Order: sequence, then C-alpha cells, then structure tokens
Amino acid sequence: MAKKYIASKTENFSDWYTDVILKAELADYSPVKGCMVIRPYGYAIWEEIQKYLDKLIKDSGVDNAYFPIFIPESYLNKEKEHVAGFSPETAVVTFAGGEELKEKMVVRPTSETIMYEMYKRWTQSYRDLPILINQWNNVVRWEKRTHLFLRTSEFLWQEGHCAHGTYEESMERVFWALGAYVDTYQNLLALYGIAGVKSESEKFAGADKTFTYEMLMPDGKALQGCTSHDLGQNFAKAFGWTVTGKDGNPLYPWQNSWGLSTRSIGGLIMGHGNDDGLTLPPNVAPKQVVVVLIPGTSESVYKYSKEVYSAVSEKFRSEWDPRENETAGFKFNKWELKGVPVRIEVGEKEEQGKTVTVVRRDTSEKISFGFDELMAKLGSLLDEIQENLLKAHKKFTVENTHEASSYEEFKKIMGGPRGFINAFWCENPECEARIKGETKATTRCLPVDTTTGEAKEEKGKCVYCGDNAVHRWLFAQAY
Amino acid sequence: MAKKYIASKTENFSDWYTDVILKAELADYSPVKGCMVIRPYGYAIWEEIQKYLDKLIKDSGVDNAYFPIFIPESYLNKEKEHVAGFSPETAVVTFAGGEELKEKMVVRPTSETIMYEMYKRWTQSYRDLPILINQWNNVVRWEKRTHLFLRTSEFLWQEGHCAHGTYEESMERVFWALGAYVDTYQNLLALYGIAGVKSESEKFAGADKTFTYEMLMPDGKALQGCTSHDLGQNFAKAFGWTVTGKDGNPLYPWQNSWGLSTRSIGGLIMGHGNDDGLTLPPNVAPKQVVVVLIPGTSESVYKYSKEVYSAVSEKFRSEWDPRENETAGFKFNKWELKGVPVRIEVGEKEEQGKTVTVVRRDTSEKISFGFDELMAKLGSLLDEIQENLLKAHKKFTVENTHEASSYEEFKKIMGGPRGFINAFWCENPECEARIKGETKATTRCLPVDTTTGEAKEEKGKCVYCGDNAVHRWLFAQAY
Repeated sequence: MAKKYIASKTENFSDWYTDVILKAELADYSPVKGCMVIRPYGYAIWEEIQKYLDKLIKDSGVDNAYFPIFIPESYLNKEKEHVAGFSPETAVVTFAGGEELKEKMVVRPTSETIMYEMYKRWTQSYRDLPILINQWNNVVRWEKRTHLFLRTSEFLWQEGHCAHGTYEESMERVFWALGAYVDTYQNLLALYGIAGVKSESEKFAGADKTFTYEMLMPDGKALQGCTSHDLGQNFAKAFGWTVTGKDGNPLYPWQNSWGLSTRSIGGLIMGHGNDDGLTLPPNVAPKQVVVVLIPGTSESVYKYSKEVYSAVSEKFRSEWDPRENETAGFKFNKWELKGVPVRIEVGEKEEQGKTVTVVRRDTSEKISFGFDELMAKLGSLLDEIQENLLKAHKKFTVENTHEASSYEEFKKIMGGPRGFINAFWCENPECEARIKGETKATTRCLPVDTTTGEAKEEKGKCVYCGDNAVHRWLFAQAY
Repeated sequence: MAKKYIASKTENFSDWYTDVILKAELADYSPVKGCMVIRPYGYAIWEEIQKYLDKLIKDSGVDNAYFPIFIPESYLNKEKEHVAGFSPETAVVTFAGGEELKEKMVVRPTSETIMYEMYKRWTQSYRDLPILINQWNNVVRWEKRTHLFLRTSEFLWQEGHCAHGTYEESMERVFWALGAYVDTYQNLLALYGIAGVKSESEKFAGADKTFTYEMLMPDGKALQGCTSHDLGQNFAKAFGWTVTGKDGNPLYPWQNSWGLSTRSIGGLIMGHGNDDGLTLPPNVAPKQVVVVLIPGTSESVYKYSKEVYSAVSEKFRSEWDPRENETAGFKFNKWELKGVPVRIEVGEKEEQGKTVTVVRRDTSEKISFGFDELMAKLGSLLDEIQENLLKAHKKFTVENTHEASSYEEFKKIMGGPRGFINAFWCENPECEARIKGETKATTRCLPVDTTTGEAKEEKGKCVYCGDNAVHRWLFAQAY
C-alpha cells in the first residue's frame, strides 16, 4: 500500500513517478514551459553521476572544455541529416543587445557543428589528431510533451566529441564510451540493460551508427540511457575539414560523439523505487546512511545517536536526524521517501545495549548490530544493497523479456504486459514502421558485443513480413 | 625580452594578454560574436577554481541546484532597477519548436527572478527559511565590446542565492560570501586586492548594497573580481513573496546573491604572467610540475626521467615530457608559456648523480636537488612559490596605490601611471560622474572590514568639489 502522500507504484505508475519527484524534492516544474528546476537533492544525485563518469572520461585521456551555447543557424544547416533531425525542436535567438540579429542563433541542441568548426581551425596535420574533448553543459530541445527528467526542453548532460586519424581508432572510442556508460549504469546506478546498435531509422541525425543502452522500466516501457555515435567522416565532409595525412594527401578526420544526460535520473527513480518512495543504490545516494534519533528519549540517547553519527559520517555520506518535533514514524517515512539506503535507529534500548537497529531500504529488513559490529559491517552491507538492487533489476528485466516468433504473439505481448521482445526482423524500415504504428513497439537495438560491436547472426523469418532475417532485434515501447 | 611568439608584456600589454591566451591554448575566439571557446587547459584552471570554491560553499551549508536557462520576459520586468540594468544586454528567444512564442524568453543574464519565483512556491512559514542555494552555470549578457575572459557575451560562473528570516542573518551570508571570495583570490589565485562596498551608481541593479573585491592589474587598471549583494527585501516585494513570520504576520524574506565567474581567469593571467608567458600559482595550476627529459640522451636517462615523474606524480599534478622531436630550449619555452610552476630537468648529468635540476617559473631560479631531497622539499617549494606570487602582487598593488589630496594630483596620476587612488569623496553621484567623465576613474569601492561591512570614518574634503567627506574611496579605471 502506498503512503498516503504518494500514489501507488503498482496502481498508478505515472502519478507515483511524479509524486516521488515532487515530494522527495528531486525536481519541480518551472514557470518556463517544459523546463524543470532540479532541486538540491536531485542535483546532488547528478553530482554523484558526474563525479563517477567524469573520472572515467578523464582517466581515458579525454579533457573537458567549454563551447558557446549559441550556434549560428548556418552551421546547423551544414550537415543535412543533422539539421533535419534537430531544426523542428530548436529555440532561436533573434534579438540580442537590443538589436535584431543579422544571423539568427540557435540555442545548442547538441554541439557537433560549433565544436567541429573549431577542431578544423586547430588542426593542420594528422599529428594534431586525435582531439579528445568532452563538455558538461545544458542543451535545449523544444519538446511538445515533456516529462520530469525523462524529456524536458532543457536538460543537463555531457557530450564527448573526438576526432581521429583512422576509422579503427574512432570506433575504439565509440565502444569505450558505450562501455563507460554500461559501467556507470550497472555499477553506479544499479540498472541492468541491453547494449546494442540502433536501426537506421532510430539512429542519430548525422551518424553512421548509433550505439545505446536500453533499460526496461516497471511499466514495461524501455528507456534509452545514453548514446555513442560513429559519425564516420560525415561532419568533416560537411565542414570541408581535412588535415594532411601520413601519406601527404588530405584526410577527412573520423569522428564520434557520445552523451549521457539527467534523463538517467529518471531511470534511477523508476528502476528502484517502490510504494514508499525512492530507493537509491548506495554508490549514487547523496546520503548513504541516516541516523535517526527516536524522539522523546533521554539526553544520553541523544548523545549516543550523535556518537553513532560521528563515527558513521567519517566513512560514509551520512545525515543525522535528531528532530524532536516529528514522530518516529514520520521520520522513518521521510527518509524512506528520500530513498536513503540504510536507516540507523537509535532509541533507549539501543543506547542501553550500545547497539543500533539498522533498516535496509531495499528489503525493509531490520538488523540489530553492536556499535563495533556496525562499524565493521556497514561497508559490506552497503555493497550488498548495491548488488541486490542491480540483481533485482536484472531479474525483473529477464522475467519481462519475451521471445515473439509470430506477429500474433508480438501483438499480444504489446497489448498485455509489454516488456522487451526479442524478434527476428528483416531490417526493412517499412516493417519497422508498420510494427510501430500497429503496436507502439520500436526497435530499441540489435544487441552487440560492447567491445567489437558485433551482433550474433542467426537464421530466421521477419516477425512482420516473414522474409529472411539474420538478426533478432530488441523491441519495446519507448519513453 | 619577449619570446618571439608572444608580444612583450611591458611594451604591449593588450597584445601580450591575447597572445598568451591563444598560444598557451587557454581559450579561442568562436564563430559567435563575443562568445569564446574555453579550451582544455583554460577549462582545467576553471575546474580547479570550482573545486576550491565549491568546497567552501558546501561546507558553509549551501547546496547546489539547477534552474532553467530561460526567463519569461515578464519575470525580468518585475523588479524595476533589475530590468533597467539588464534588458539592454539580453539575448531573446522568440521562436521555439517551430512556433513564435506567445511570451518571449530571455536567456538568463542572472537568475534572481526565476529562482525567487520558485522560492516563493516552496515556502509558507519562517520555518522554511533560510533557503541556501547555489548554481554553477552559464549566463549571457550581450556586450558590444568583448575581451577574452574579461568580458564575453556568454560566461561561466556560480551564483549563490539565499533567503533568510532576518536582515542580520542575510548580512552574515553576504559577508561570508565576500570572505570566501577573498580566500579564493588570495589562497588559490594568489591575487591581492581590496574588499569593499560599491557606490550607489556602481552597485548591482536591484541590490541595496554590493560588496566587491578589486584587484590592480599591471596596466594600472582595476579588475572587479566578484560581487556579493545585499538585496534587502526588494525582490520579495517585487514578487509579492511573504511567509508567515514568528509573530504570525506576513514577512518579506531578506535576500542576498553572490557570484564569481570565469573573469577570474583573466585576472590570474594578467596578475602573474611575464614576457615568457603565463605564470600559474601552484594551488590552481592544472599541472604543478613538469618533468622534462633533455632530448638526445641515453636510454638510462629516459628511464630515470620516468622514475622521477612516477615519484612526483604520486603527490603532485604532474606532466612528463620525454619528447625527442623537440629541442630542450623549445620544451622549456613551451612549459614556461603554459606557466607550469616547477620544471624538473633531467639529462645525463642529473642521471649520473641521481639529482635533478629544478627551475622555478616565478623567479627563474635554478636549484640542484638530490632525488630524495626533491621528494622531501618539493611540497614546500610549491608553497613558497604560491606565497611569493601573492606577496609580489601585493607589493605591486601597494606600490601603485596613490593618495590624492587634490584633483590636480588625481588627474596627474590618472594621466600617468594610473593605479589605485585613495581619495575623499563627498558621496554625491554628480562628483563621481564628473570624475569618471574627465579621468576615466570610477569609484571601485569604499574599503570595509569583510566581517562587519564597516568602513573607517575620517574627516576630509571631497577631492572634486571640496565639500565635507567622511570616507576615503578607492578609485581606478576599471576593466
């Protein structure tokens, strides 16, 4: 049963999602249509994601930098697929400094064009390659229908943009990025998913190939968690960017771009929460532990709770809640709603025995620990919770992944429980479009080996038209 | 004498400044008028500033959050002085998602209005105060004349925005912020300056009082390094924001805002650089130490230089330069240009004696150390360089601070060496405007105690009109 202040996750998933975000103070609607305010608790989660991913990025040799938020309209127009993909959703500045601009500026929906213009200026020879740059910033894609964290007109992300002397080197970076995202989702956010390559119709506007990590959400819909694009030489050609190659001939650099956004927080909320609110994996939780003083107890209990907090906070991101103007039940609900992985309760009984009562957010299990025992075991308990959450999400995903050998079966699944569907598809975009139109399911990806990009070849018949097919694709209704 | 690839700092300061930025690859001009690209080396400096200041901010109890980049035009119009101050330099979005907007959106020049609208929604009672929020973001102020780092149409900064139940509590935060900036400038950036309060005409549009840190640059002009604003109840009243006070009556919250931007990097470049390029204080240097292998030496020297680098890089942010395709002189110049505080040269002689040759960027002093000695003394050498740079900038500032007891004297100083001028001013805006018109000098601030905001009262005569004056103000030509 849901707490009275939030909707039930099983009964009304969509209301539950919004309630959790608003009540746990992760984010709020803003006065600007489709843009949200990320409140301190939500932003602290984003900072943990940034810290984790930024280290992976820097350790791999990519540097951070910053490029202008505005893109001259003519730049966006240079790559044809790119402009077709983004121009319907741009926000356009027409006035600045009190004057009408001669050339309109687009608020960046992504930064390929402005970055590659600079790369062109900075390079003469193959020796100036690779260029390995990432930026953490805000981008704007004006959306008709928005959804907190999942689809907002402005969002925060990182966009990595690298340029290389060879195709092979560029592809290594494409797979490195995909691997870094899989690492972040699995080891930080405890979210299981499927890595793969997008179909032609679902790939990024301007890319040769787009790789993705697709996660199944509790309502049976799929969330695209990131993208890593092989851009080939498309942008180099559109910008007339060549460098002198090893052989002395002009060389169009090979490029890739890759991004992960605040949308990941939407996945985190949906993937682990329950009727009591948010459930945060310890590695990404802004507060891993909360020490709750049972109110109305004696001075010595207060002191003992402070002692416990002091010891715990030296090793873990912790919060102390000694409030006397809230009941114990209210306090428990509050920290459950906020998804803190471990609650440590301290009352008379605990103080007398120099013990603590530990409650796991993920299983609601209560454990009594002696003080020294707590200090020895808390780290591994947090690790266990982290692993358990990933395991649970994997179990859910596997249980809700279906094989559809006929279109009847396919439609039945999409009409009922939804979830992931593995099905042969002939790779004709027409079949893909018809399946989408009739069932709402889109090709999420063709699962691949994340280090080589290779997909398993099989022999089968397209689930829609019955023609020969060599790959089993992953289908689902997307967010 | 300047290195041939950059102008001389003493002979042509303005060209030197631009040359250093472009050649050391700190930043570059972008295709968008007035907006710059911050390249990896410049951005790494910004990341060090963020790391230092963010810790001060968080330790003081302020949380980070994120608010939309767009502000509905009507919001900006709510506070009259505020809109008058900012509307001439706004960039305005009129189209989004392919449609003309009903209400135009301004790209934030600062976020007071959008943030306080949300604060209003989040608070009912004095118990919901204080609100302590900061954000790191990009803002846009469309400038006619721009200058890399010092004045760009888009820049990066942090803006702290707090709201309190009492005036006293708000002022504590105003002075806390000023103190945090003084700390950052002095202990991280090694830049000496004067903290004080702005005159009525120089204060922030919408503030009751604006506090600042003013630094003297080598060309005798002053750089405003930050601002901390006492906003009184101005915005609360403009937004009709009240909470229930302790006495049950409506209370307009007291507010403050404070910011430090990428402009600080401009001060850092100007304050310490010399004819050889940039000079970075060790605390903010992305690379504190570079180990340079003398090219053309034997395999064992190469190995020894690697050993030195391994040992050094465990403790300090370090770079290893074993390049064989550049001469020793070229390598030395390159790292001097980039301002790395300590260069460690390793050649045949050093390898044989298991020594290193250390060269200080700030003094060009060469010191020979044994390997063990280096490891024992490098930390304190870096501290010494840090202190020396602050001391040198303080010495320069003091030597170029003048007392002007007559307007003749005042004009002579401004026509000659410029610098800081201490002079009595009657606090009549007319005298201030005339002084500016005739000499280009503006009131930079009235120096105050940074914990109380109190200024020294004296008896004197206005340097311009001769009327009674009680304060000696700091004047200079500003950037």
